[in-house]
Amino acid sequence: MRAAAELIAELGWGRVTTRAVAERAGLPHGTVSYHFRGKQELLIEAALQAFAQAMPIEHFAALGSVDDLLGLIAAEVGDPDALDPVVSRLLFEAMREAERDPALRGRLGTMLGDYRRLIVETVRAGQAGGAVFAGAPAEALATLLGAVGDGLLLQVLLDPDLDSAGAIEALRALLARS
Amino acid sequence: MRAAAELIAELGWGRVTTRAVAERAGLPHGTVSYHFRGKQELLIEAALQAFAQAMPIEHFAALGSVDDLLGLIAAEVGDPDALDPVVSRLLFEAMREAERDPALRGRLGTMLGDYRRLIVETVRAGQAGGAVFAGAPAEALATLLGAVGDGLLLQVLLDPDLDSAGAIEALRALLARS
Repeated sequence: MRAAAELIAELGWGRVTTRAVAERAGLPHGTVSYHFRGKQELLIEAALQAFAQAMPIEHFAALGSVDDLLGLIAAEVGDPDALDPVVSRLLFEAMREAERDPALRGRLGTMLGDYRRLIVETVRAGQAGGAVFAGAPAEALATLLGAVGDGLLLQVLLDPDLDSAGAIEALRALLARS
Repeated sequence: MRAAAELIAELGWGRVTTRAVAERAGLPHGTVSYHFRGKQELLIEAALQAFAQAMPIEHFAALGSVDDLLGLIAAEVGDPDALDPVVSRLLFEAMREAERDPALRGRLGTMLGDYRRLIVETVRAGQAGGAVFAGAPAEALATLLGAVGDGLLLQVLLDPDLDSAGAIEALRALLARS
């Protein structure tokens, strides 16, 4: 699947063929085309798998606190040069393709929802323990935290000098006042 | 320029030619190619102009308070169906292209910085008046607010059922406690 992700990043989503993926992966074309109902399904699976590897859901499931989550976001967006360029290109390719393909849009929306549900649990635990602002529903704060992560990622990719660490510290200070 | 923006949204950035833009705009090809140093400059100008029209900087310059800014963000992301589909496609096309073209990346980064500077002024005034949390620098809160706007926009385009209004209300509650 990494072969497909690389090809999307290199050529653009629309120019990848199952044949090219098979060649890159060193597999017979029949093996690749047998496993997927067409090129689009293959590329969608490859993109989602690459995102899941870049941001493992296990890390979200293992979060001990909202502070840990902010640390995870800070690590992800803090050093844009450290981001796998295949993954960041793939992210833009997938978002653009999702605008056209409801199936991909649905899959990405579901993936965002999976991360968000784990963040909700972390926020709720923090609120119960008095460490996190309790003046807003956990769901709303989780949506906010997810948006901050995605928005900062987007902006540091456009502007590597963005002070993402400062923004995350500001959010930490806001949330800490319970 | 709208002709170029529409063509980027329809065909994808890489497939637009200055000739196609001239035809769509009903202009002689020479007129279009005379004004721009090549296709890339034309497309970059068209994209930036479309974004500036979709989110006029005057609205940011006229902000009376951080509450107004949150209202502006809520209006922008609250009804994804109301977003101009040309602009949202163009946004994804431009982000993808920016990953490849440092000139476009620089222009988009500068544009984000222009909005952010106006947000900093609004935050600073709110902090001085006691309406906005003063426990973090205005610059950091402005970066946070910009990221929330972009992150929510991205997420509602993938998941129209996202409760963006709830997230914005949570942020309003967080910021109000001064």
